[in-house]
Amino acid sequence: MTVPVLSHDSSRSRMKIAVFGIGRMGKRHARNVAYFTPDAELVAVCDVNPSASKWVKDNLPAGIQCYTEPSACFDHAGLQGVVIATETSTHVGLAVQAVQSGIHVLCEKPISVDVNLSKPLVAAAKANPHVKVMIGFSRRFDESYREAKSRIDQGLLGVPHMIKSATCDQYDPSGFFVAYSKASGGIFIDCGIHDIDMARWLLSTPGSDCAVKRVFATGQNVRHPELEKDGDADNALAIIDFRGGQRVTFHLSRTAIHGHDCFAEIFGTEGKMIVNGNPQINRLEIRDAHGVRTESTPTYYERFREAFVTEMNEFVACCRNDLPVPTTVDDAMQAAQIAVALTWSFREGKVVEFDEQSGEPILV
Amino acid sequence: MTVPVLSHDSSRSRMKIAVFGIGRMGKRHARNVAYFTPDAELVAVCDVNPSASKWVKDNLPAGIQCYTEPSACFDHAGLQGVVIATETSTHVGLAVQAVQSGIHVLCEKPISVDVNLSKPLVAAAKANPHVKVMIGFSRRFDESYREAKSRIDQGLLGVPHMIKSATCDQYDPSGFFVAYSKASGGIFIDCGIHDIDMARWLLSTPGSDCAVKRVFATGQNVRHPELEKDGDADNALAIIDFRGGQRVTFHLSRTAIHGHDCFAEIFGTEGKMIVNGNPQINRLEIRDAHGVRTESTPTYYERFREAFVTEMNEFVACCRNDLPVPTTVDDAMQAAQIAVALTWSFREGKVVEFDEQSGEPILV
Amino acid sequence: MTVPVLSHDSSRSRMKIAVFGIGRMGKRHARNVAYFTPDAELVAVCDVNPSASKWVKDNLPAGIQCYTEPSACFDHAGLQGVVIATETSTHVGLAVQAVQSGIHVLCEKPISVDVNLSKPLVAAAKANPHVKVMIGFSRRFDESYREAKSRIDQGLLGVPHMIKSATCDQYDPSGFFVAYSKASGGIFIDCGIHDIDMARWLLSTPGSDCAVKRVFATGQNVRHPELEKDGDADNALAIIDFRGGQRVTFHLSRTAIHGHDCFAEIFGTEGKMIVNGNPQINRLEIRDAHGVRTESTPTYYERFREAFVTEMNEFVACCRNDLPVPTTVDDAMQAAQIAVALTWSFREGKVVEFDEQSGEPILV
Amino acid sequence: MTVPVLSHDSSRSRMKIAVFGIGRMGKRHARNVAYFTPDAELVAVCDVNPSASKWVKDNLPAGIQCYTEPSACFDHAGLQGVVIATETSTHVGLAVQAVQSGIHVLCEKPISVDVNLSKPLVAAAKANPHVKVMIGFSRRFDESYREAKSRIDQGLLGVPHMIKSATCDQYDPSGFFVAYSKASGGIFIDCGIHDIDMARWLLSTPGSDCAVKRVFATGQNVRHPELEKDGDADNALAIIDFRGGQRVTFHLSRTAIHGHDCFAEIFGTEGKMIVNGNPQINRLEIRDAHGVRTESTPTYYERFREAFVTEMNEFVACCRNDLPVPTTVDDAMQAAQIAVALTWSFREGKVVEFDEQSGEPILV
Repeated sequence: MTVPVLSHDSSRSRMKIAVFGIGRMGKRHARNVAYFTPDAELVAVCDVNPSASKWVKDNLPAGIQCYTEPSACFDHAGLQGVVIATETSTHVGLAVQAVQSGIHVLCEKPISVDVNLSKPLVAAAKANPHVKVMIGFSRRFDESYREAKSRIDQGLLGVPHMIKSATCDQYDPSGFFVAYSKASGGIFIDCGIHDIDMARWLLSTPGSDCAVKRVFATGQNVRHPELEKDGDADNALAIIDFRGGQRVTFHLSRTAIHGHDCFAEIFGTEGKMIVNGNPQINRLEIRDAHGVRTESTPTYYERFREAFVTEMNEFVACCRNDLPVPTTVDDAMQAAQIAVALTWSFREGKVVEFDEQSGEPILV
Repeated sequence: MTVPVLSHDSSRSRMKIAVFGIGRMGKRHARNVAYFTPDAELVAVCDVNPSASKWVKDNLPAGIQCYTEPSACFDHAGLQGVVIATETSTHVGLAVQAVQSGIHVLCEKPISVDVNLSKPLVAAAKANPHVKVMIGFSRRFDESYREAKSRIDQGLLGVPHMIKSATCDQYDPSGFFVAYSKASGGIFIDCGIHDIDMARWLLSTPGSDCAVKRVFATGQNVRHPELEKDGDADNALAIIDFRGGQRVTFHLSRTAIHGHDCFAEIFGTEGKMIVNGNPQINRLEIRDAHGVRTESTPTYYERFREAFVTEMNEFVACCRNDLPVPTTVDDAMQAAQIAVALTWSFREGKVVEFDEQSGEPILV
Repeated sequence: MTVPVLSHDSSRSRMKIAVFGIGRMGKRHARNVAYFTPDAELVAVCDVNPSASKWVKDNLPAGIQCYTEPSACFDHAGLQGVVIATETSTHVGLAVQAVQSGIHVLCEKPISVDVNLSKPLVAAAKANPHVKVMIGFSRRFDESYREAKSRIDQGLLGVPHMIKSATCDQYDPSGFFVAYSKASGGIFIDCGIHDIDMARWLLSTPGSDCAVKRVFATGQNVRHPELEKDGDADNALAIIDFRGGQRVTFHLSRTAIHGHDCFAEIFGTEGKMIVNGNPQINRLEIRDAHGVRTESTPTYYERFREAFVTEMNEFVACCRNDLPVPTTVDDAMQAAQIAVALTWSFREGKVVEFDEQSGEPILV
Repeated sequence: MTVPVLSHDSSRSRMKIAVFGIGRMGKRHARNVAYFTPDAELVAVCDVNPSASKWVKDNLPAGIQCYTEPSACFDHAGLQGVVIATETSTHVGLAVQAVQSGIHVLCEKPISVDVNLSKPLVAAAKANPHVKVMIGFSRRFDESYREAKSRIDQGLLGVPHMIKSATCDQYDPSGFFVAYSKASGGIFIDCGIHDIDMARWLLSTPGSDCAVKRVFATGQNVRHPELEKDGDADNALAIIDFRGGQRVTFHLSRTAIHGHDCFAEIFGTEGKMIVNGNPQINRLEIRDAHGVRTESTPTYYERFREAFVTEMNEFVACCRNDLPVPTTVDDAMQAAQIAVALTWSFREGKVVEFDEQSGEPILV
């Protein structure tokens, strides 16, 4: 929780922000802007469902305007930034509209489930370089991953050469994510994109070449056979070869029993680091008839709740001080391209090579 | 960070609070009121040192009044609560003045280094039952201790019968705490009071008798021989026998090398729990030439920073909703009395018995 | 150390054993037979180097015959079993000779670096079913892996569906293993064969199909670029798809800094298990200026020294009681075939499919 | 398991040993001599119960003589050493007889429940300095405690100044130990003697003064109220002040639920060490609906089984090479005296001072 303090600048008025989409993540973002981002002010929310206004009334400070029409919200007087936490399919349209209106954007990942659909945002961002577009790769704002990055930069690991990670969600018998699966683009795009972005970030040291050479993926459906018809999996494995020689492998799962277990190992020539070896929810250990045991974070939210606060504060700091955003549209495009190639590899059972010139996967 | 949300009630205006004493803890409390307590508003600070106003200007939102005179601050229009984080010797005077002015008080521990000096506050609190007086036993607001308490209440441990704890501060070669030692009342009062209060809290189950029967303490000066002349120690051990049969033992230290290590074991007939078995600062583990290792919280602040936010939010919620405060003046008096008896035991090398009627230690 | 006791039967004379090859592993096996296998008696050793006899004299009980000629050793009066711990290239020849002489064999892995070269042993074993041929897959005799297997059999994990493992040797600046690399068949055959066998063993539950469908591998040389010319790697990643839907992935490394780190995760529908999450060498933890830390087993030997004792005792028990050996020539052939396919995949950058009929990899 | 190898000397005949008392520990010692002590030979056992011979026949090599009369056993031809694992009340008589017969002794702890009763053994040992008398303080032979001692000697901790330990046995609803309690001398003598000896050993650095100044103890009966009438406890706490300024505190318990949990923290001016922070029985971790968990050693035997083997090998090495034994009668007498003083303190609720001249506790 140090970042909110660092980013505070009381000599200027607070940045006026609206949150689009009052779903699970939108509610959290709205609270974070309203209560935990000293340099920002939540002025409006926008949700197509008019009942969102009741939630706003019950949970947020007075005086926040509720819109159901995006255009009306973009016209809110003095609006400086938006957080886009709507359904994935609407991300690009809203983000482009914001950028073209000169309004800074913090957009939830993924930009879209199809790389091509994201291109208008790439173009809009390029055409409006003074407008910030930041992507919600929350893992980059977590203090433990940041400490890992910092240690790499200090040389603790020598040359970092391999990342092994896992993002394992707790099994949800309600099948929520299965319903969500089609719209989400599948496990590599919805979930693996975090691992891909994290690996690219941690392995990007001066002089390293993180262009992809080839990828391979495989998957299973051990709890959700109904995913098979959509070409999705509830467990998946991926290997990514970078041209610079680095290797990345990760495991994605929807079927962990003990909780949300999001884990990374970073290997270097002088040592390795592990992030979140035990996904414990707090500092309590129990020793009883079930053994010596700790309890785990049930979802990514308990794991990353502080990271979301830091993310918001950094977004605001970048906008107010005209700094480069830490997670760019290009990062999102690169990660998406890799996720798409992995999805293809998993479905076809084949290696996907990347073209050395274009950097794009050869999906044949 | 769940409590701030829970305590939020946007239908009413925020509670107006002033912070007294802009020292190490006062700065933190001021920030927590200003930025992380949705239902409160920081309206003023008071510090005898006029330079405090510069810190306020640089670190807090605009519009906060700075006072050097307590009386003037107490007269601040609409003031509803104060946080007292001044030197220990001034706690009682300020707290009494606040209570008599109908202003709620959150007072840092200890109330005073001498139990008798605290009695005016006991009297004032008793005479003004509508005014809240809460004591800053921060450990009670930490999510892990709270989870422990909740599990005990649910019966996970059967009958809890013993607490073993340790509060070990990192060795500070600057000798800061040695200079501070005289004013602080010594290691049992300055530091052990947290362990005592925590043990009383966790062992207080329905029907249990937490009146003290006898105590014994011993100590060492392994790094700070200069403490000896003041009858203080840099390492100390204590045993407390409760009349209900429960036992408490703790270790206090100023000489830990790896960091601040604050640890508790709670034993029950059906199992035990451990809080903070490894005082790790984050979720990063390093494996290199020094072994498989984690880094530790350097001070109590990194360990308890969220607890201070929760404490503030609960204080505000108790005041606004007229609820009993979780940490009372009586808790502080009981803990202080035990700490004084332990100090006496350590200095004399003798057991101290407590009078069954009065509940007070027999210091002869 | 429970197995030696279990296998003891004092009513019969001890099994007479000779050890072939007094190198690193041979010395350990000789000691284990001589001192820690109650039902066996070390009667002879055989090593082409006559100086082995000095080591025997200095380290083993009196009365052990030393041979330099295998044939002479096989003729040792009353010899019942041999342990083959010579150079890999001599395994098959010696094992076949033993089997044809009616002498039981415990053979170090791998049988050979080339699957075809192993076929005479397959034939000999088949032709002499009363002679035991057991392969030294030591991991199967480790108490923690055994406990894992036992829990799987009891159903703790539901349906086991994925194994993720790692065998990371400590970096050896002397380059010993590099010199050894050519003869060893490379990292997948020398080292990965343990992970492959372990995964096949743990995933072989009633009704499961562990035939391989396809594999993929990749590798790096981060410390030993000189391996490149031999088509070997000092770090490697592999994925194995089984026809039954199970997935296996592992990481092999020669460059760990903190020690030998051999790790497995076993995923099931009802939970997961981890073997050796922290490769600590003993129960000592240090908390000092380097953090909260433990030290690691430097080599596989400290990690598996008890497993080798158990392995020897089980070998003896199988021979004396005419029981099926737990690790067969067929297990070794299957593992070798997969290791060869992974080596090919790594060198070619392509997926290797396995023929459904023959079960053999299609290396084109 | 390195010590057996180290102590091996095949140029001489093996030491002939008899084990007295074929109870729980005697059986283990007999097995260890017979199978895991290369330089020793088990030639006889002695137990008043003739049925012991059946156990010997079923579990040990052929040719071991069974006696029911101690004198007959002492007369066994060529007997060089005895292991005394009988009931505590018979230890002194048997040990004295052995010593006077020139037979080396490894005697289980405690020598007796009453310090005065041990004096004949002290005298006999003094009168026969060429005969070894070693006491079974098994903890000193455990590799983790040994590593701790070694690190202290190397200066890793700076000046060691405090030991905090715990010996918590798993709760046994059968009440076995309660029946055993009277004969055992109570929890401080039966169980605490290990903690006392371990602390004296680890704190005995060159120049340190480990004479006791004062002690204090307290206790509870949380599961076994029937112990109260014998002045015993099922949970106990002790503090020991050494004249050199070192402090020792320990917790003894018969009511742990998760297993046998024997734990030590060793504090020095430059760091601390922990032995057995998690009493895990093997390297397996389970992650399922009960959390992230490990299982614990059920009894001290699983925890210390290798230490007992090392102890036996060292005993044999000391006898064969005329080396001083690591755990002397004097160590046992010192530890017993402290245990007696703690028992008195617990029963009386008073501090016990030790006489500076005589070093004996003043029990008034």
